[in-house]
Amino acid sequence: MSEETFRIVEIVKFQELQAVPLKNVRLEDTFWSWRLQVHKDVTLEACLHHCEEKGRIRNFAKAAGQSDGEFEGIYTFNDTDVYKTLEGVAYSLMLYPNEQLEQKCDEIIDLIAAAQQTDGYLCTFFTLKEPDKKWTDMNSHEMYCGGHLMEAAVAYRQATGKNKLLDVARKLADHYDDTFGPGKRHWVEGHEEIGIGLVSLYRETGEERYWKLAQWLLEERGKGHGVGRVWKMEGLGPEYSQDHVPVRETVDVRGHAVRAMYLYSAVADIAAITRDREYLAALHRAWDSVVFRNMYITGGIGSSGHNEGFKEDYDLPNETAYCETCASIGMVYWNHRLNLLHADAKYADILERSLYNGVLAGVSLSGKEFFYDNPLASDGSHHRLGWFECSCCPTQVSRFIPTLGKYIYAFGERGIWVNLYVASTSVLMVGGYEVGIVQKENYPWEGTVALSIETSAPRQFEFNLRLPGWCKQATVSVNGHRVEEITVNNGYICLDRTWANGDTVVLDLAMPVERVHAPFEVKANRGKVALQRGPIVYCVEDVDHVQGVENLRLSSNTELVSEHISSLLHGVTVIRGYSESSAQALTAIPYYAWDNRSPGKMAVWLQENRT
Amino acid sequence: MSEETFRIVEIVKFQELQAVPLKNVRLEDTFWSWRLQVHKDVTLEACLHHCEEKGRIRNFAKAAGQSDGEFEGIYTFNDTDVYKTLEGVAYSLMLYPNEQLEQKCDEIIDLIAAAQQTDGYLCTFFTLKEPDKKWTDMNSHEMYCGGHLMEAAVAYRQATGKNKLLDVARKLADHYDDTFGPGKRHWVEGHEEIGIGLVSLYRETGEERYWKLAQWLLEERGKGHGVGRVWKMEGLGPEYSQDHVPVRETVDVRGHAVRAMYLYSAVADIAAITRDREYLAALHRAWDSVVFRNMYITGGIGSSGHNEGFKEDYDLPNETAYCETCASIGMVYWNHRLNLLHADAKYADILERSLYNGVLAGVSLSGKEFFYDNPLASDGSHHRLGWFECSCCPTQVSRFIPTLGKYIYAFGERGIWVNLYVASTSVLMVGGYEVGIVQKENYPWEGTVALSIETSAPRQFEFNLRLPGWCKQATVSVNGHRVEEITVNNGYICLDRTWANGDTVVLDLAMPVERVHAPFEVKANRGKVALQRGPIVYCVEDVDHVQGVENLRLSSNTELVSEHISSLLHGVTVIRGYSESSAQALTAIPYYAWDNRSPGKMAVWLQENRT
Repeated sequence: MSEETFRIVEIVKFQELQAVPLKNVRLEDTFWSWRLQVHKDVTLEACLHHCEEKGRIRNFAKAAGQSDGEFEGIYTFNDTDVYKTLEGVAYSLMLYPNEQLEQKCDEIIDLIAAAQQTDGYLCTFFTLKEPDKKWTDMNSHEMYCGGHLMEAAVAYRQATGKNKLLDVARKLADHYDDTFGPGKRHWVEGHEEIGIGLVSLYRETGEERYWKLAQWLLEERGKGHGVGRVWKMEGLGPEYSQDHVPVRETVDVRGHAVRAMYLYSAVADIAAITRDREYLAALHRAWDSVVFRNMYITGGIGSSGHNEGFKEDYDLPNETAYCETCASIGMVYWNHRLNLLHADAKYADILERSLYNGVLAGVSLSGKEFFYDNPLASDGSHHRLGWFECSCCPTQVSRFIPTLGKYIYAFGERGIWVNLYVASTSVLMVGGYEVGIVQKENYPWEGTVALSIETSAPRQFEFNLRLPGWCKQATVSVNGHRVEEITVNNGYICLDRTWANGDTVVLDLAMPVERVHAPFEVKANRGKVALQRGPIVYCVEDVDHVQGVENLRLSSNTELVSEHISSLLHGVTVIRGYSESSAQALTAIPYYAWDNRSPGKMAVWLQENRT
Repeated sequence: MSEETFRIVEIVKFQELQAVPLKNVRLEDTFWSWRLQVHKDVTLEACLHHCEEKGRIRNFAKAAGQSDGEFEGIYTFNDTDVYKTLEGVAYSLMLYPNEQLEQKCDEIIDLIAAAQQTDGYLCTFFTLKEPDKKWTDMNSHEMYCGGHLMEAAVAYRQATGKNKLLDVARKLADHYDDTFGPGKRHWVEGHEEIGIGLVSLYRETGEERYWKLAQWLLEERGKGHGVGRVWKMEGLGPEYSQDHVPVRETVDVRGHAVRAMYLYSAVADIAAITRDREYLAALHRAWDSVVFRNMYITGGIGSSGHNEGFKEDYDLPNETAYCETCASIGMVYWNHRLNLLHADAKYADILERSLYNGVLAGVSLSGKEFFYDNPLASDGSHHRLGWFECSCCPTQVSRFIPTLGKYIYAFGERGIWVNLYVASTSVLMVGGYEVGIVQKENYPWEGTVALSIETSAPRQFEFNLRLPGWCKQATVSVNGHRVEEITVNNGYICLDRTWANGDTVVLDLAMPVERVHAPFEVKANRGKVALQRGPIVYCVEDVDHVQGVENLRLSSNTELVSEHISSLLHGVTVIRGYSESSAQALTAIPYYAWDNRSPGKMAVWLQENRT
């Protein structure tokens, strides 16, 4: 492993934990490995195909003057589909090198570079269609495009070592920095992706101007500088883009859900650099607002289609739940940053909830069809599609899935933190030394996890295992000896000892079927119950119930058992309900797997008969 | 001690802890004992005097036909001043027998009994002034009067063994039960005292109809049965009397603050009898609403004078804070019940906060002047008065102060719980045996408390000492040996051992001056800081500051020290602030003691200069 891999540690000083570079983690997991294969073989290809077919790539050729014709598509942000696809390819290339695919991407990157204007500006919609209207509408997604370009460029350089796209991104960032900032023009970017992009670019290049511009852009918000189309749209005020209140004064998270996730991810990124107390306090309030008052059991957020975002606290309808797939992935991004900032498992709990439910539901088992919105109940008419006019979700899934490996571990000065239970072989840095971890499990279906240490010499460090919030009973053993007194810090079982090569920890998480009730404040779920087992939230579908799910009732004394069916839905553990009083047995499947068989009604929350 | 004393235990089955009868606790406390003396010598006399002078007692004579003339006063609830005064006398008589005073009360009780109508009805306003309008206006306080009569009757019987007032109360309760209930008339009493009164009467008499009527009255609310003057008053809807939502569906506590406290106290009383899960859940939500989103640092509640009650969450202005004295006492009543229900110290924390700050501020050190409302900042024009047209607060203080002893301890199957640190000698029942506790301290000024056990034979039980929420560092020793591993359960330090006669526990609570910041959501206190030491909240007054308090700033690096001055305000520990940069030294006094010297401006929250 090179020094290069851990360069990030020196730059990010003020967070408790560091992320593990993707290249250091090799997945060997039954549940996830085939999903990454499907991503590589199907999802990536589908995204590239749609980007070509729908003219997303041709727009760059046209802007470069290498092709004739008008801008294709109706949205100013169509460039991002190409950037996000490239980003997904980059992560996939880290795991599965593919020369042919890399060459194809190099050609796309050549077009992107050629489309960049001499002053650094890059957004093909304006170059091709409205060159006089650049920087006139803060909701036109110009910097949103730029942010995604930056993320793609960093990923592509890390994957291939090639600098061309990174140079385009730096030139664009420099253009932003020349145009906006203290003493220059005001700007409140309507879609806040740019903050993540700039910090990502800073971390890759070490150029401090980039994070400082990101910080300045955060500070622009909520102070009356925002103008543009969105603020004039009927029923949507500055709140839609989180421009109604300064970041430091955030109390309730409102507006567009994906924008909110990107905004607060950038706030976390800046707080990790500056340790700004007011930013940290605002993040705490924002997290409480989202998690305790505005989140679905699936980890999905944004209950309204009108603003693709938040409604009033606790207003969480099931049939019309928006829960955009992009927003669930945003929850993973944001909670990952908060987990690193504070070394607190509560953030990884939410990350896991969104990951296994809200995110995974967004893509079909086939890997080529996607949900944009993810309701928690359906009349049978809601189905995944291959592409959308506004097609953020497929490319979001595509850039997310191959990054799974980086969410498994984190490391810090005191040792190693295990956040996700995913079979893998990984190399981490602990106290300046390399330590290998081999993890074996059959998660999320079984709660037994074995972790073995690989070290060239005995090393003292903390080995912190997340005790999931859903788990009520756990045992731990080290080298076959049960640990009698378990110490739990911030939600982690802390094993602090000197570790020798081959030392093995076995964690046993009890994983019974759990009946879950929503907070009373959620009117939509009063008198209802949901089923969860481990991190997996369940639902019922018509296809498993001869009389349909509409009138299904779950009695409080119904016996619930779990059963693994390897032939069903690429292998799932189902929940069966047996009741003496009901003629109809209940079969619940993981929510993420719904709408992969015959269409029909679906429900997560069931009427409960209390007896 | 007689079996009689602990009869209550058999009736209240479903709460974790039991209250200790007042007679079993003898106060020997520097801070409190003189207050009870002042209460007996001054406050009680003042209340009796005003009740006579203002015609409150003559109203009963007139209703009995023993005197001529019209109803005196303008309110339908003037009878309650007499009842509450009698209740205060009763508790005082338990501590300080006084034949002359008792005889005077017997005479008043004769008048009350004579004023009761043959069907049991009793409310002199209607008997004298509007006999045709009985039971036509749910906000006319008829049952509010009845509830206070019941509480007074129970107290008077417990103090004197005399049944006359109790018989009046029973006859009245039977009249209610004949008139209202399932299949009879609907009724939503505007001021909810009646629930407390009926349960109190049930506990004294064992008559189950009384608590069932109280339960029925709770269930009447929020279902559209309420009609009357209050609901038509400008700007005040059913919310004013907590009639906007069924009790079971309570989420946010709204409306008149004292009414809310009495309502939720009655809900706790009924939950202690029935263990109704929905009531318990509603109480949890109500508590979170009040304590986390609608309470002042003084433990005062009700931020608006308009409705004498709650505003929107976190809307807690200082200058116009209403914080009715009665409502702070209501907080003690309610939190005491919740503490007994759940054996959780968090409720005793709030009880203590309200007691030492919101409640105590309500009465002057002289014992004869009272605040109705208790702002947290004053321009110098707000002062205590001897009596009010609506004079609930003086008689509320009068009936509360002598009951202090019953809040010190609680007991349960497993042992003894110490809630307040007040020097006293007490007798409790533990596992069927009597155990004495002698407590010595100089609280709230010093954090060292010594508790000695008196037992005729060694007994195993838990001795649970509240670890106050404000305390960050504590040590405990038993018989001079420091306890190294402290176990804390629900906020109590749990000492579980076999106790012998003379065993002594010493608890040492660190009590430094603390700077307190309000939650960010409270706009009124942004950039401000308050001072607290132990349970005491501080304020600054003009009289201690040569340049006045208006422009006082507290720097974050100002050194703060405490100093006890026995000659000041009947003995208080003040906080002094010494700052190199400021010419004006700061002196803060306990909030409860403000407006006892020269009038001037006062403030609890100070502008903070962060350096």
